[in-house]
Amino acid sequence: MEKPYVVGIDIGGTNTVFGVVDARGQILYSGAIKTGNFPDVNDYVSELAKGLKLVINQAGGKEVIKGIGVGAPNGNFFNGCIEFAPNLPWKEKIPLAQMISDKVGIPVALTNDANAAAIGEMTYGAARGMKDFIVITLGTGVGSGIVVGGNLVYGHDGFAGELGHVIMRRNNGRLCGCGRTGCLEAYASATGVARTAREYLEIRNDASLLRDLAPDSITSKDVYDAAAKGDALAIEIFEKTGTILGEAFADFVAFSSPEAIILFGGLAKAGDLLMIPIKRSMEKNMLKVFAGKTKLLFSQLKESDAAVLGASALGWELK
Amino acid sequence: MEKPYVVGIDIGGTNTVFGVVDARGQILYSGAIKTGNFPDVNDYVSELAKGLKLVINQAGGKEVIKGIGVGAPNGNFFNGCIEFAPNLPWKEKIPLAQMISDKVGIPVALTNDANAAAIGEMTYGAARGMKDFIVITLGTGVGSGIVVGGNLVYGHDGFAGELGHVIMRRNNGRLCGCGRTGCLEAYASATGVARTAREYLEIRNDASLLRDLAPDSITSKDVYDAAAKGDALAIEIFEKTGTILGEAFADFVAFSSPEAIILFGGLAKAGDLLMIPIKRSMEKNMLKVFAGKTKLLFSQLKESDAAVLGASALGWELK
Repeated sequence: MEKPYVVGIDIGGTNTVFGVVDARGQILYSGAIKTGNFPDVNDYVSELAKGLKLVINQAGGKEVIKGIGVGAPNGNFFNGCIEFAPNLPWKEKIPLAQMISDKVGIPVALTNDANAAAIGEMTYGAARGMKDFIVITLGTGVGSGIVVGGNLVYGHDGFAGELGHVIMRRNNGRLCGCGRTGCLEAYASATGVARTAREYLEIRNDASLLRDLAPDSITSKDVYDAAAKGDALAIEIFEKTGTILGEAFADFVAFSSPEAIILFGGLAKAGDLLMIPIKRSMEKNMLKVFAGKTKLLFSQLKESDAAVLGASALGWELK
Repeated sequence: MEKPYVVGIDIGGTNTVFGVVDARGQILYSGAIKTGNFPDVNDYVSELAKGLKLVINQAGGKEVIKGIGVGAPNGNFFNGCIEFAPNLPWKEKIPLAQMISDKVGIPVALTNDANAAAIGEMTYGAARGMKDFIVITLGTGVGSGIVVGGNLVYGHDGFAGELGHVIMRRNNGRLCGCGRTGCLEAYASATGVARTAREYLEIRNDASLLRDLAPDSITSKDVYDAAAKGDALAIEIFEKTGTILGEAFADFVAFSSPEAIILFGGLAKAGDLLMIPIKRSMEKNMLKVFAGKTKLLFSQLKESDAAVLGASALGWELK
């Protein structure tokens, strides 16, 4: 009989969350440890293995687990390593999939967070039944998971799908965290929205609820709250953000002609404030042959569970 | 025993060329008809079938042919149709693969020219053994065939891979044949090179061999000839063209992280005049994780045969 459960592990800079998941995408048992408490990765894996054994035993033991999927920043599917992740305590190249598998005795696959999100949407979410789609993660940064013909695009080195780093402004572009200028991420991430807010407040004179805040402390959440109250300047910030995303999406469609582009992550909570300008801009910039063909959707994974679900979906693909 | 041959058909606006090809990429028997002589597509297919039967009989009859591959402008692999091709005599949606198969009694697959080129490189050319690469065709327009994990990227509708129409200049971009502005094709095609030449000659005052020509009649070949003679302005035109291509390629790498990008088509004959600035610009614009990893190569298909070979390669994939 097919084993009925998988385990998903989401590794973040602060917390590592894990859970046992069934084929319908229900998290049955879950746990968490503090990533930041373990400067030595061996200690981290030992503690994680303890937590995993607990939830696996609750589910019925390792005989009922088909595989373990891990979503981690800078995770490379091909070699199961985390490579030089700036936000994790371990800077070198860590063979994490192998280390976990050795401790727990279950096959482990690992990929980056955005790829995990894409597999999650395909298995349990908005992309069920689709073979060609792109998930765009809008958080602190902008990430992407690209699916072509039913398979995740890894590229020849395992690092494909860095769509937050296509260049949207080739002149006078904003400095991006990657060291280049004009990247999509510098405009369309949560951080990018806050930067746009500071820029608008400085160069314009119109009234705005955002003027009550210290400019340097403004977050994308503040911009959302103001826009939700009808603040014209805040609404315009989301329009500007959506416009750049739509321009980028039209180029992505010229590449892989996906059935849908799915928005995932904190900033996607802005809903229509972001979606309406994205749609308008994407269609305005679209090559004619693609006009009106690509759906724009929100993630259908429950936010608190999404990262664990996405990672767990990788477990179903293990032999 | 596996059937030893395939047939490739390359449909252009002027000529249709076809040939019987073996597993090593040798064209054994070939023929051609004038595409433009047949305003009725039924007459065209009848004449084409006559020519095909001739070369197939020379090869030993249809029992030795595994399949027929067709490369055609606006060809859609999914439904075997040519759809609204502006440069062919038949404007509507033509089920060409089915029509040819009905006449000849051999399975037929059809795709667009750039996709055929990509399969050709993978089967007989520069991409043998590669699973992730992109072919960029530099001719009158700019086309692309993208291979991910060993499979051509068709997208959900069969039209993926329009990389000539990503937007490279979002302000004051050149008008493109597609009706939008700033497309890669408007700069990096043979036509784009000629436009750059006219632009440079008008706004600059430095001497150039190109000033001996009537500006409106200048072609990319003229620019190449001048550059080959050491003309500084002509060399700079190729540098500008290569710079824009390199910027675009860095974005393509962020999408699918290919092992190689392969240049195909007439403009690729410019060789190092184009390749050196492309490489410089691509690496300058590359996200760090991809730096130095993606090869830039020229097509290894003999130019006169390339289109037929590319189309024929599709024949091997038929059941």
